[in-house]
Amino acid sequence: MIRISTFILLLLFVFSGHSYAQTRKMDWADLATPSLSAKSLRNLQWMGTSDFFTYNADGKTILKGSVKSAQPDTLLKLQQLNEAVKLLQITDLKLLPSYKWVDNDQFTFTHKGKAIKYSISKRTAQLLNSFSTDAANVDIEDSQYRVAFTRDNNLFVSIDGKEKAVTQDTDKGIVNGQSVHRNEFGIKGGIFWSPKGNLLAFYRMDERMVAEYPIVDITQRIAKVDAIRYPMAGETSHQVTLGVYNPTKGTTLFLKTAGPDDHYLTNICWDPSEKFIYIAELNRGQNQMKYNKYNAETGEFVKTLFEEASPQYVEPLNPALFLKTKPNQFIWQSQRDGYTHLYLYDTEGNLIKQLTKGNWVVTNVNGFDQTERKLFYTSTAVSPIQRHLYVLDMKSGTTTCLTQLHGTHAAQISTNGRFILDMLSSTDIAKRYDLIDATSGKLIRTLQEDINPWKNIQRGEITVGTLKSKDGSDLYYRLTKPADFDPTKKYPVIFYVYGGPHSQLVTDTWMGGGNAWFQLLAAKGYVVFTLDNHGTSDRGFAFESIIHRNLGTIEVDDQMVGVNYLKSLPFVDADRMAVDGWSYGGFMTLSLMLKQPGVFKVATAGGPVIDWKYYEVMYGERYMDTPQENPEGYKNANLLNYAQNLKGRMLIIHGTSDNTVVWQNSLLFLKKCVEKGVQVDYYVYPGHEHNVVGPDRIHLYKKLFQYYEDHL
Amino acid sequence: MIRISTFILLLLFVFSGHSYAQTRKMDWADLATPSLSAKSLRNLQWMGTSDFFTYNADGKTILKGSVKSAQPDTLLKLQQLNEAVKLLQITDLKLLPSYKWVDNDQFTFTHKGKAIKYSISKRTAQLLNSFSTDAANVDIEDSQYRVAFTRDNNLFVSIDGKEKAVTQDTDKGIVNGQSVHRNEFGIKGGIFWSPKGNLLAFYRMDERMVAEYPIVDITQRIAKVDAIRYPMAGETSHQVTLGVYNPTKGTTLFLKTAGPDDHYLTNICWDPSEKFIYIAELNRGQNQMKYNKYNAETGEFVKTLFEEASPQYVEPLNPALFLKTKPNQFIWQSQRDGYTHLYLYDTEGNLIKQLTKGNWVVTNVNGFDQTERKLFYTSTAVSPIQRHLYVLDMKSGTTTCLTQLHGTHAAQISTNGRFILDMLSSTDIAKRYDLIDATSGKLIRTLQEDINPWKNIQRGEITVGTLKSKDGSDLYYRLTKPADFDPTKKYPVIFYVYGGPHSQLVTDTWMGGGNAWFQLLAAKGYVVFTLDNHGTSDRGFAFESIIHRNLGTIEVDDQMVGVNYLKSLPFVDADRMAVDGWSYGGFMTLSLMLKQPGVFKVATAGGPVIDWKYYEVMYGERYMDTPQENPEGYKNANLLNYAQNLKGRMLIIHGTSDNTVVWQNSLLFLKKCVEKGVQVDYYVYPGHEHNVVGPDRIHLYKKLFQYYEDHL
Repeated sequence: MIRISTFILLLLFVFSGHSYAQTRKMDWADLATPSLSAKSLRNLQWMGTSDFFTYNADGKTILKGSVKSAQPDTLLKLQQLNEAVKLLQITDLKLLPSYKWVDNDQFTFTHKGKAIKYSISKRTAQLLNSFSTDAANVDIEDSQYRVAFTRDNNLFVSIDGKEKAVTQDTDKGIVNGQSVHRNEFGIKGGIFWSPKGNLLAFYRMDERMVAEYPIVDITQRIAKVDAIRYPMAGETSHQVTLGVYNPTKGTTLFLKTAGPDDHYLTNICWDPSEKFIYIAELNRGQNQMKYNKYNAETGEFVKTLFEEASPQYVEPLNPALFLKTKPNQFIWQSQRDGYTHLYLYDTEGNLIKQLTKGNWVVTNVNGFDQTERKLFYTSTAVSPIQRHLYVLDMKSGTTTCLTQLHGTHAAQISTNGRFILDMLSSTDIAKRYDLIDATSGKLIRTLQEDINPWKNIQRGEITVGTLKSKDGSDLYYRLTKPADFDPTKKYPVIFYVYGGPHSQLVTDTWMGGGNAWFQLLAAKGYVVFTLDNHGTSDRGFAFESIIHRNLGTIEVDDQMVGVNYLKSLPFVDADRMAVDGWSYGGFMTLSLMLKQPGVFKVATAGGPVIDWKYYEVMYGERYMDTPQENPEGYKNANLLNYAQNLKGRMLIIHGTSDNTVVWQNSLLFLKKCVEKGVQVDYYVYPGHEHNVVGPDRIHLYKKLFQYYEDHL
Repeated sequence: MIRISTFILLLLFVFSGHSYAQTRKMDWADLATPSLSAKSLRNLQWMGTSDFFTYNADGKTILKGSVKSAQPDTLLKLQQLNEAVKLLQITDLKLLPSYKWVDNDQFTFTHKGKAIKYSISKRTAQLLNSFSTDAANVDIEDSQYRVAFTRDNNLFVSIDGKEKAVTQDTDKGIVNGQSVHRNEFGIKGGIFWSPKGNLLAFYRMDERMVAEYPIVDITQRIAKVDAIRYPMAGETSHQVTLGVYNPTKGTTLFLKTAGPDDHYLTNICWDPSEKFIYIAELNRGQNQMKYNKYNAETGEFVKTLFEEASPQYVEPLNPALFLKTKPNQFIWQSQRDGYTHLYLYDTEGNLIKQLTKGNWVVTNVNGFDQTERKLFYTSTAVSPIQRHLYVLDMKSGTTTCLTQLHGTHAAQISTNGRFILDMLSSTDIAKRYDLIDATSGKLIRTLQEDINPWKNIQRGEITVGTLKSKDGSDLYYRLTKPADFDPTKKYPVIFYVYGGPHSQLVTDTWMGGGNAWFQLLAAKGYVVFTLDNHGTSDRGFAFESIIHRNLGTIEVDDQMVGVNYLKSLPFVDADRMAVDGWSYGGFMTLSLMLKQPGVFKVATAGGPVIDWKYYEVMYGERYMDTPQENPEGYKNANLLNYAQNLKGRMLIIHGTSDNTVVWQNSLLFLKKCVEKGVQVDYYVYPGHEHNVVGPDRIHLYKKLFQYYEDHL
């Protein structure tokens, strides 16, 4: 997947039907300060199995809230914790660590190679385990507090403070215990402790057969190559297997997964008994998935529980969720009926029932109550751009919506299933925390609310709406007017685009900090516009997968609907529109400039995919198949074939260490432009990867802004 | 040395006191056509020892000219040659090959692995030798027509059509028979046949200890590193030795050169007896040279003939020239007295006499007459920007200038020393060929003259003049006015700069084809200005070497003299000046922008050295010593330390495969700009090395032009 990262994730904007008449306009300095962020309740979580919850008042105090009382108590001060950990030779805790409640009295946390349990009542800290401070990918299981971690390309465990190597591969081309398949299929890591911590499953990735792509580090005295293994679409991919380590015996076996070696082993999941492991296995073509069960003690294949197939692709993103009360049952998430829904299975592979259904998608499974009669989940049933919490009665099948206010809800359910801590962000409310009754959905109390952290700054008015695509689908857009809008004037437009899978830019949320950039543009007199085209997420499989094998086609058509809408607006200067995008959005920006020449006067594109054959196997082949299988589709999407169409000014930007969309993409485009006598502008961010993050991001914004000022 | 190459060499402009009122203005299409080049006599040369000379009338006819007759004869037609070579299985000669007269009847040439001698009288072609068609660096000696060549990193000979390997190194880090020391010290190759072809000396370069610099080839399916061995200033350098191969015995010995392994073995020269080899050996510090004699049969060191030393550097550029009549005497070129002059030595190392002397430099030794009583040479005695031919009576020491017209003369002396073929280029005359009496200097006949190939195009008026530097030296400048100059108007300026050693931009020559670019700028309404600062060539050692250890200091001061002159001119818009330069000129451009901020509104710089520690050992340490020896000088020259001073707009350009000024330079500068919040513009030419050559050069010109139009 192309990382959406900062550039995309921070784009979600506030809707306000009116523009606040505020004291001042936004300016550059506002981008660099966090003052525009909404106030948060940090580390808010339910406390064990109780009806209490905790959060950090500041970096030095944990407060305890109660369902019954509006007034929180001070539960722990950093000073108290520090006194306790002194005995463990820890003297450098300057702020409260991230912690996790074990029960109603104790929480665990780690600090510099030490896993620690602290008791509120006893005021004592207990050393659970220790591990090397150079450990990476540290994973601690909750039963015996065994630690697994990686160092370079090998996997290690620490049990009762004793370190032991699980793997001892000397070839750097073999990587153990780390993420595989480039984090596609929801993969986030390569370490999987069994439920009680008795066994350790782990990914082993052999990428010796994958071509090396050279990333050059210019900060060395003499520039040096840091090669990455980057399997490009249609080329040889890596080979992944799943090991199971038994710490007691000190033995490792590998599951006897069948099929071609370049298949995908995804959504690794232990059976509650620790006897079996489930893997969602996909063929390299990604159009067939088998949900396979293996014996963890012998490595033998047990059976295929079920299969899923699609002419486009199958993309499992979540491992099974096992029921505690019925350990032979689990919930499976699938978009097999066209929308992501929940299915209840047993471990023999029998479908017990489809739990949810409708022309909307489940976006999160929030969990069960203790009895597992109630299942809480989040969905788009109200609107594709909203997220609401639902409770499903597992027996009756009745569903109740538990959140009322429009917007995007993120809920934590108390263990007993009686109460909800709900965090809301909407176009009206920057951030609000509610305590809600989980049975009735009734608001018990608002814990904190920050309606508008932009009080002192004049913002551009934002409108969220829909337009009709060719096929009649709704396309959601967001339009921001200049901060000091005058309806008799005409304004230039910044048309911000992403448009790739797994993204949704137009949502009912308050803006994040990074969106301040768009408000800055509004303050400088630009209209800012964004639209989610076919191919983007949470609109169902048909809406998303229609782009299969033909990237850059219907997406461009949809964006042109937005263009035509803008042209119809009296305050838009249609001769002065700039398109901007990064990554897939860079691909879209170039596609719009080159396939619809003359529409935009100016373009700015970062880290663009130019020809999908230079993109990686997992994401690339899902949407495009291989170049061998889909020559026509690759040709039509290949922007090298359109370079000569360029009209207007275009600035392409790339991070020189980009390991997602490799630099070769934009360099080849420049080469083609030179060959064709086409003038294009370019800039690079030395040492930056796929996104320009950190303080240098301001430099990027100024670069873009200067380009608009120069040429729009 | 930073290659001056196209960008510099083609910069030499025409002076014209008046602007021609021509039919049309120059435009872009004129850059791409060669119609603006002056007419040449191709392959003009003396014919053996006779008073005849030949040249190609076109690609298919050789004409024979005579001292006595104004009318040339047709000597040979391609068709005749083709009939003769048919017997050698050659049927694909479409144009006359390059040929070389052996005597008054026969010439030699090579074609696809065949060395051939053709006889005019007999109309026959004789196969002298043959060699593999994949041979590189082919070197054929004139006595026995033995061929030496390289394939990959090894050296081979072909004798009587039989190929034999001289070296068989399997490690790519060892290179035989090729240029070493990065072509510094006048080095052009690595193969040195002895005068009679009995022995073969060759360079062996061991660069296994030199760090590899990664050049990335993006045209591969998956980008691939083509590493080069690039020894940077202060870092480990390569080790060169000199092998001597005896083809009869099939043996190779290596000369027993002493001293640190990273010294320089330069100006390899055989003794006429074939018994000895002379090497100008320099220490790595390049401040001491020993002229050493070795026994070619044993490899033993014989003696040091003489030494040269300097607090700045010693830079021998020409091997000894041995007298044929006195084979124990040779001419040595040295700037030991402050100017490049000729010295007569014997092979015991005794200085017989200094042949030339004065505050000017010898730029070429044209050769002797047969008796070796007369020595012909070219010098700057008339003016630093002119080149005239002189004859020296070896006995009496009297010198006579043989060329009258001002400008730049390039002469070929007939073997008997009686006649001269002189090619002249000057600010008044594009190209002219004269036949001159070598005794009197009297013009016998003008063979061809092309005064002005720009007849139909309106040119900007050019002035060449001098300004005074701080120390009172003359600084030569060239100023080109806009093509349709109106003295009541004010014009923007393109200030073109190079300024590095071994360069002279302001000379009394007609423009070459590449200079059309500057006339195009003049046609578009720009004043174009160029000045040669201290450090540039042919002005004597003091003028050149004053930059030692402090690059970018006095050069900037000198260029500011030019700036102030421009500001004094009523037709110059001093608020609209752009500085432009490549390579050392890129370094100068940035130095001017950053050390004199505010002077130039716009800058364009290509392939700039940013910090001399990223430049290579040979050139870099000559002028800067090592970073360890001269930390202050490196710091003062390092443009990373001035990035925050940037005022105005600056476009930096780099070839992504630059193996002279490596890409790391400009990328590090960009990184620094990002860190400092400085906005700078950038462009790269994918796959191009240190200069953008070929058809893509027009793209570069348009890129520069667009930048001036956008921002100046």
